[in-house]
Amino acid sequence: MDTMALRNLSCGLFIAGARDGGRLTGCTVNSVMQVTSDPVMISVCVNHKNFTNQCIRDSGGFSVSILSEDAAGEVIGVFGFHSGRDTDKFASIPCDKTAMGFPVLRLGVCGWLECSLESFTELPTHTMFIGRLTDAKTSPGSPMTYAYYHRVIKGKTPVNAPTYEKPLEGLWTCPLCGYQYDGSAGPFEGLPESWTCPICGQPKNAFRTS
Amino acid sequence: MDTMALRNLSCGLFIAGARDGGRLTGCTVNSVMQVTSDPVMISVCVNHKNFTNQCIRDSGGFSVSILSEDAAGEVIGVFGFHSGRDTDKFASIPCDKTAMGFPVLRLGVCGWLECSLESFTELPTHTMFIGRLTDAKTSPGSPMTYAYYHRVIKGKTPVNAPTYEKPLEGLWTCPLCGYQYDGSAGPFEGLPESWTCPICGQPKNAFRTS
Repeated sequence: MDTMALRNLSCGLFIAGARDGGRLTGCTVNSVMQVTSDPVMISVCVNHKNFTNQCIRDSGGFSVSILSEDAAGEVIGVFGFHSGRDTDKFASIPCDKTAMGFPVLRLGVCGWLECSLESFTELPTHTMFIGRLTDAKTSPGSPMTYAYYHRVIKGKTPVNAPTYEKPLEGLWTCPLCGYQYDGSAGPFEGLPESWTCPICGQPKNAFRTS
Repeated sequence: MDTMALRNLSCGLFIAGARDGGRLTGCTVNSVMQVTSDPVMISVCVNHKNFTNQCIRDSGGFSVSILSEDAAGEVIGVFGFHSGRDTDKFASIPCDKTAMGFPVLRLGVCGWLECSLESFTELPTHTMFIGRLTDAKTSPGSPMTYAYYHRVIKGKTPVNAPTYEKPLEGLWTCPLCGYQYDGSAGPFEGLPESWTCPICGQPKNAFRTS
């Protein structure tokens, strides 16, 4: 079976937002889809291990911030590679609140959606939430596709994503986000000590090689 | 509510394939997603009115052909704007059969998936089928995104798609596929009588204006 074909399933990159009581939280997702036209319904898959999974149930809905190609690496690092259990993800990321009180990013997005929770289906590693669209807004920018994230930003896939694959051996690898240095700026050993992971900001000396 | 934001949800363009007894059938879909990583599961949404909807249930699974940017307009016309009830869609489209007997396109694709049906969820206009990946193959090419289809091919959305929107008034419109002539080759009246719809092949004299 040639599972590289899965890489040709086009999708975007998004921040799913919810509330943890009065606190705002969210996580990076790549599996957001419009599933019906009338009324408009949206599905989003969130790993069982993600804190946001429980928060969507408790909040009775969710927001989707649609990342654009100019999204800051910090956004992907904070939302994709930290947990909302122990991180206040919105402390450093400017956001607005929808009418239902869900966070939507102010920068590096080309729109957002707000949905009330209609149903959810438990799958082996993920929950598929289905929400009814209650509000939406567009802003200028080109949506970041997952292909663009991999090809241009050379971003990695969090272990909790539906599309996670095991990393390659022998490369210098970030212990937090899994980014693997590809040698494009010379040997890893020659990079300045001030160099940090371009995805999540971990210091050079945290990197490991197998 | 600014539903233009829905256009920024990146997705691809696919042919979902199934069997109608011994006959091969399928339809165009834009809502295919990897929903879990271990085991790999794939979701696809098919309108209740599509013949392929019943065929997927009867077949116990489905195939997904991943269209590439060089897919022929005829493929989109045949699979998106005709019904498998009264059209033998694979009569003019070269295909192979997967081990489970589902059709996959040989040309204009960058890969295909075969899935056994795990479950389905009824939604207002569509059924969401979830299948377990049983086989997959990649071939060279860039996946056609729905954005590329709209921007470059100027393709239209079938009325049965989750992303369908009502057409603009006052433009010459194809009665079969909904393609609206945009004036880029001069006034509609001045086009040669041999001109046909670039999406589905309907003749010029079938076009109507409101």
